[in-house]
Amino acid sequence: MAVYTEVSDEELIDFIAEYDIGELRSCKGIAEGIENSNYLMHTDRGAFILTLYEKRVDPDDLPFFLGFMEHLASRGIQAPVPVKGRDGVALRSLCGRPAAVLRFLDGMCHRQVKPDHCSEVGKALAQMHLAGLDFPLSRANNLSVTAWRGLLSDSVARADEVKQGLGKELETELTLLETEWPDGLPSGIIHGDFFPDNVFFQGEELSGLIDFYFACNDCFAYEIAICLDAWCFEPDGSFNATKARRLLTAYRGVRDFSPLELEALPLLARGSSMRFLLTRLYDWLNTPTNALVTPKDPLEFLNRLRFHQSVKGPGEYGLD
Amino acid sequence: MAVYTEVSDEELIDFIAEYDIGELRSCKGIAEGIENSNYLMHTDRGAFILTLYEKRVDPDDLPFFLGFMEHLASRGIQAPVPVKGRDGVALRSLCGRPAAVLRFLDGMCHRQVKPDHCSEVGKALAQMHLAGLDFPLSRANNLSVTAWRGLLSDSVARADEVKQGLGKELETELTLLETEWPDGLPSGIIHGDFFPDNVFFQGEELSGLIDFYFACNDCFAYEIAICLDAWCFEPDGSFNATKARRLLTAYRGVRDFSPLELEALPLLARGSSMRFLLTRLYDWLNTPTNALVTPKDPLEFLNRLRFHQSVKGPGEYGLD
Repeated sequence: MAVYTEVSDEELIDFIAEYDIGELRSCKGIAEGIENSNYLMHTDRGAFILTLYEKRVDPDDLPFFLGFMEHLASRGIQAPVPVKGRDGVALRSLCGRPAAVLRFLDGMCHRQVKPDHCSEVGKALAQMHLAGLDFPLSRANNLSVTAWRGLLSDSVARADEVKQGLGKELETELTLLETEWPDGLPSGIIHGDFFPDNVFFQGEELSGLIDFYFACNDCFAYEIAICLDAWCFEPDGSFNATKARRLLTAYRGVRDFSPLELEALPLLARGSSMRFLLTRLYDWLNTPTNALVTPKDPLEFLNRLRFHQSVKGPGEYGLD
Repeated sequence: MAVYTEVSDEELIDFIAEYDIGELRSCKGIAEGIENSNYLMHTDRGAFILTLYEKRVDPDDLPFFLGFMEHLASRGIQAPVPVKGRDGVALRSLCGRPAAVLRFLDGMCHRQVKPDHCSEVGKALAQMHLAGLDFPLSRANNLSVTAWRGLLSDSVARADEVKQGLGKELETELTLLETEWPDGLPSGIIHGDFFPDNVFFQGEELSGLIDFYFACNDCFAYEIAICLDAWCFEPDGSFNATKARRLLTAYRGVRDFSPLELEALPLLARGSSMRFLLTRLYDWLNTPTNALVTPKDPLEFLNRLRFHQSVKGPGEYGLD
C-alpha cells in the first residue's frame, strides 16, 4: 500500500484533459498494489483508476500489459479497460512516469475464501486462458523455473536467518524442479499473480480481475497450480481439497486438461510454491525496515511446498 | 498519507450492514489525512468515506466533531454529513477503533492558489463561523496560546538543530504573544486547520470543507489570521496582498470585522505562525525516520512569522 509519486490536482486536471472522459470531480491516492502509484478518480462519466508505473515495471512491457487487458475486455473477460487519449494512445506520461487510465471495476476481495469462490475462480481462469490465445504480443516469464536459480543465489547465504536448514532444502528442491520441469504443455498467456487480492467479487459472483503486471507466456497448468496455492490453503496451513475440487472442476468445464497436464500438476504446484517462496524470501531479506510495504512471510509457501511434495498424484487435489 | 488500520472486506460488509446506504460495491484505502485511516467506498447509492479514528484523536471529542459537521451541513455549509446507522447512531466501532461513515464530497484541492480561490475561502469561512453560532457543544482549543509554552518546552532544547538561534527567537516571540494576546474578541467555533488541503473546489467554485478534527472554540479573527498564513503566501515565501485583500473582503461581505478584530489581526497572525511552527517543529524533531508520513518543514512558518512581525497595521493585509 503506497502512493510513490504525488500528483498535484493541477497536473492531474491538465493530464485528464488529454482524454474524453468528462470533467474531473475528485481524485484520491489509493493504497492498492505494491508496485505502482494508483489514484481513484471520479469524473461526471464514472470512476477510473490512474496508474503511474514505478521503477519495478519495465516500460517496454507496458504495451503488452495494457494490450492484454484491452484484448481480454473485448472478449468479455472482466479485466480493466485501458482508456485511450483523444489521440488514440493509452500509454501516456505524467510526472515523468509512464501512466495509464483504466476503467474502474467494482468489487470486493475475499480473504475468507469459500468453495463457491473457487468455482468462480476456476471458470474465470479458464476463460481468460482461452481468450488470450489470439493475443498477438508475447512476453517471456522472467519468474519461471529458469529464473529460480538466480533468485535462490541472491538469498541462499541468508536463507537460514529465516529458518534453520532452509537454504539446503531449497537447493535440493530446485535441482529436482530444474530436472523434471515439463515441456510441451498447452501454453498461452497467464495472469501470473492470480491471488485473492487481484480478484473482485460482488456477493458470490466474480466481478473483476486486476493487476495484470505479471502477465506472461507460460503453460496454463502452471497457473492452475498457482491457483491451488493461492486459493486452496486455509489460514492454518491445511490444504482444502473441497476448494481444489471446485476450482479444478470449474476450470475443466471451460477447458479440459490434457492427461499430461494432469500428471504434471503436483510438480507444477511445487514449482509455484518455490516461485512465491523465493520472491518473498528475497523481499523479506532485502526490504529496508523503514519501507512503506511490510514483506509477506515466505514460510507460508514452504508449508505449501512440503504439502505438494507429499502428493502422490493429481487425485489428491480432489480430481476424479 | 497512510492507512493505519487494515479492514478486511468481510469485516466491512458486516459493518456496512448496520447502515441503510445500499450494497457495498467497492472499498479502497485512501492516502488522505495524517491522523486517521480513511476508506473510499462505493455503494449502489453513491460514494462514502469510512474513517477509523486512530490514537491521535481523543474519542471523547468525536461527538463534538461529528455533531459540528452535521450541524454545518444542515445549515447549507458544504461539510461532510455523518451518516447514521439504522439505530440512529453515527459514531460506531470497527476493528476496535471508533469509526464513522461520511458522505463523500466531490472536489479537488488547489495547491496553486489563485485570488479567486481566496474570495471563495473568505466567504465560506465567514459562513461557517456564523453557521456554528448556535451549535450547542463546545471544545476548548488545546493548541491555542496557552498551549504554546508547553509545546515550545518540548522542542526548545533541539530547536537549533533546525536553525541556529531558533530556540531563542521563539522564546522571545512567545513571551510577547502571551503578554499581548487579546481577550474578548467575537468567538465561536473555528475549523482550526483551514488549509488548501482541506478545501475542495470544482473549477473555481468552492465545493467542500473537510477534516474538522481540529475544530474548537476560539476567536474568529484568529482563524482569519490562520487563513492569511494558509492561503496568501507564495511558494517563494512572499506575501500576496491581492490574495489577502480578496480573502478579507469576501469574509467581510458575510460578517464584518469589529475595529478590535482588525487591530488585533497582525498579532493574531503572528500567533498563527507560532502555532503551526511549533507543531511542525515538534513533528520534525520527533518523527521516526521509518514513519509513513514525511514531516513538513517548520521554517516555512518562521518566514511567515517574520513577515507578520514587520506588519505595521491591518492595512498591509490589503484592507482599506
